[in-house]
Amino acid sequence: MRLRPLALCVLLSSFSTPLLAQSPALPSPDRVRLDRLQLMQGFPPPAERQVTAANFLSQYPNVRWAFHHMRELLPSRNIARGAGPVSELPVGEDWRERIEALRFTGPDGNELSFIEYLTDSYADSTLVMKDGKVIYETYHQGQTAHLPHQLWSVTKSFTGLIASMLIEEGLIKADAQVTDYLPELEGSGWQGATVQQVLNMTADIDYSEIYGDERSDVLQYAVAAGMVPAPADYQGARELYSYLPTIGAAGEHGQGFIYRTVHTEVLGWLVRRASGQRLSDLISERIWQPLGAEQDAYMLLDRHGTGWAGAGMNATLRDLARFGEMMRNEGRFNGRQIVSSSVVRSILEGADREAFKASGRDFQPGYSYRNQWWISHNADGGYEALGVHGQMIHVNPTVGLVVVRLSSHPIASSGYTFPTTRPAMMALADLLR
Amino acid sequence: MRLRPLALCVLLSSFSTPLLAQSPALPSPDRVRLDRLQLMQGFPPPAERQVTAANFLSQYPNVRWAFHHMRELLPSRNIARGAGPVSELPVGEDWRERIEALRFTGPDGNELSFIEYLTDSYADSTLVMKDGKVIYETYHQGQTAHLPHQLWSVTKSFTGLIASMLIEEGLIKADAQVTDYLPELEGSGWQGATVQQVLNMTADIDYSEIYGDERSDVLQYAVAAGMVPAPADYQGARELYSYLPTIGAAGEHGQGFIYRTVHTEVLGWLVRRASGQRLSDLISERIWQPLGAEQDAYMLLDRHGTGWAGAGMNATLRDLARFGEMMRNEGRFNGRQIVSSSVVRSILEGADREAFKASGRDFQPGYSYRNQWWISHNADGGYEALGVHGQMIHVNPTVGLVVVRLSSHPIASSGYTFPTTRPAMMALADLLR
Repeated sequence: MRLRPLALCVLLSSFSTPLLAQSPALPSPDRVRLDRLQLMQGFPPPAERQVTAANFLSQYPNVRWAFHHMRELLPSRNIARGAGPVSELPVGEDWRERIEALRFTGPDGNELSFIEYLTDSYADSTLVMKDGKVIYETYHQGQTAHLPHQLWSVTKSFTGLIASMLIEEGLIKADAQVTDYLPELEGSGWQGATVQQVLNMTADIDYSEIYGDERSDVLQYAVAAGMVPAPADYQGARELYSYLPTIGAAGEHGQGFIYRTVHTEVLGWLVRRASGQRLSDLISERIWQPLGAEQDAYMLLDRHGTGWAGAGMNATLRDLARFGEMMRNEGRFNGRQIVSSSVVRSILEGADREAFKASGRDFQPGYSYRNQWWISHNADGGYEALGVHGQMIHVNPTVGLVVVRLSSHPIASSGYTFPTTRPAMMALADLLR
Repeated sequence: MRLRPLALCVLLSSFSTPLLAQSPALPSPDRVRLDRLQLMQGFPPPAERQVTAANFLSQYPNVRWAFHHMRELLPSRNIARGAGPVSELPVGEDWRERIEALRFTGPDGNELSFIEYLTDSYADSTLVMKDGKVIYETYHQGQTAHLPHQLWSVTKSFTGLIASMLIEEGLIKADAQVTDYLPELEGSGWQGATVQQVLNMTADIDYSEIYGDERSDVLQYAVAAGMVPAPADYQGARELYSYLPTIGAAGEHGQGFIYRTVHTEVLGWLVRRASGQRLSDLISERIWQPLGAEQDAYMLLDRHGTGWAGAGMNATLRDLARFGEMMRNEGRFNGRQIVSSSVVRSILEGADREAFKASGRDFQPGYSYRNQWWISHNADGGYEALGVHGQMIHVNPTVGLVVVRLSSHPIASSGYTFPTTRPAMMALADLLR
């Protein structure tokens, strides 16, 4: 495989601490401002500004343009907002100056301001809501408001929420075996795993996410999804449904939490099989339309039309704010109960914090992972949907805070941004408390 | 090239009369009803119902699903409807029974009903407006209302309209040479051709559209656009901007009309260069948003993000009706003048009918082709935007008639459907006159 290290990073959300030490030399955020890069400008653009499906992940800073234009690179399916009116996103007091000037202590002990934090983490756009009102909304450095942004693993939290709804409705049983719904996975690594273990990523499978290993499973996943082109000598599966059953067994299910995107692809398959509907249609009908979203969202697809349930959703900042606000209000938004409060409350209970420690994600101390959401178990009851390269929906129910940040960080792993994000969110909560 | 004949048909809108004689055995329309085919149903669909970018054109009846799902197969760019209200599409008297029962004489002298005509031409959906009101709107055999449909060469009429608007505004000069704007085409077949000659397709170039010829230029076009996969031994250009300059010179410009899609690709390039905007943005800002379209439309792209100016637009039936109604009203719709009436009137003047005869399109007697529109020069002043596989916007200003028909005919060329379409439209006009 001829993928460069940065390209591989995108696939790596779990990692070991030693990897963090190899902090690569990053370009100055000012040098990769989108409004200076002129990516894809001109007819045709000069070769060095040409972004393609083949180079968007391997050549930074191409993602600064690509993350707002994924459907122009890859096949996609619409997540329709429907024909209803756009819901109001009320505007509150303008906290811009106070938020941007807010100072806090980063993980290395240095003090920095909130705007330095955003800039240094290559934020594309940021929105803060307090008690249901927008108090900060910024599109940084020429970034775009109206185009859906690639969400990476924030997608997982949508898939997990839909699965949770289907469980409550009795369409899926959390303690059933995955193979009860997907006999195609008999004999695979998911044999013997329950739906809940897949939801919480405690099912164990023989799936590695290792840098630079030409046979690494994570590269096969990326090729199967159509995320990266298949190398000339590639012999593996080229779409998700034939790839997933090839993943073998590992240890005992239900022990440690290990973050693996393919679990969510299995979950997406299970949701489709159980409901008879595509994930994109489920999200449209059950979430996007009732939310009164401003824009259609969309899902990226493999070459057989299967959505990337673990990584492929694209949506705008403001629509994600509506979604976050709906979660904060235990499923209520736009004058209606969109998700039952018991589904939201069940997710927020979290999972086994001891099992979580196995993941080595020391930058999320005390956390657990339940139904594809990151639960902090902190005093404020905070939780997140997170995606690589800096995508985040953060909710702090105690303070009434919803933060959405979309980003195009050169390094995929949340491990490079979250150690600063965590104290930043705490400082913001204290400012607004 | 391993493309099957039906796949090639899609690219062939010009053809010689002898080809028409080779009428292939077509599947019964009833056998290929979308609601029976179950294409792309199941997770995963069975192999024989799997539609992909590689098989949608080569394996009929896959287009019956694909033409409503092109963005799920290929990269695409949004044509935004904006945030404004949806414009009204007033409903008039219900003419369904009378329209479907309407009998007329087909080209072979046999009588048939209007509904037989629609069914036998594999119509997906049909809408008729009379004096600004919808009197017939049908989605046939399980076809879809809300998903944009592939328009093929109806796209050309949008590109031609945008070019005409820019000409009126002085941004492009109709009598300037194409190479004045696109020096990249110096030394190519377009050397010495004027903008107007490209608009009217009387520029002559060394570009053949021949069935079964493995080196045919039309196959290169399809590969360059990303419409069909490149065969293993393919050595040519793989995107439009590098392909177009390779097309060489032929006879004298400004003589006979010969229908060639690459002219419209040059026109799209010219429009982008002159305006500094993408075609999809121009259509959005100047047409789709002012129209008050119900749905976003979209444009299919090559692998470098260049829209298929000659073939890549997708839109819904109802939004095309709005567009047709705007044309019928000389540029006025939704309470505003969207295109100046002088631009519309100039297009409707048509071009040289003698030059048109050179095309061998005997099924359009008396026609000319001006600014990418088919002008009938008949007593009613009728005109059309036409696309392969049966796409059509038909306007009859005298009768106040707008007909939009979207279709997935097994044979691409309008020559297979238009000989019946022409008397069908005449009969419909007489019914409503």
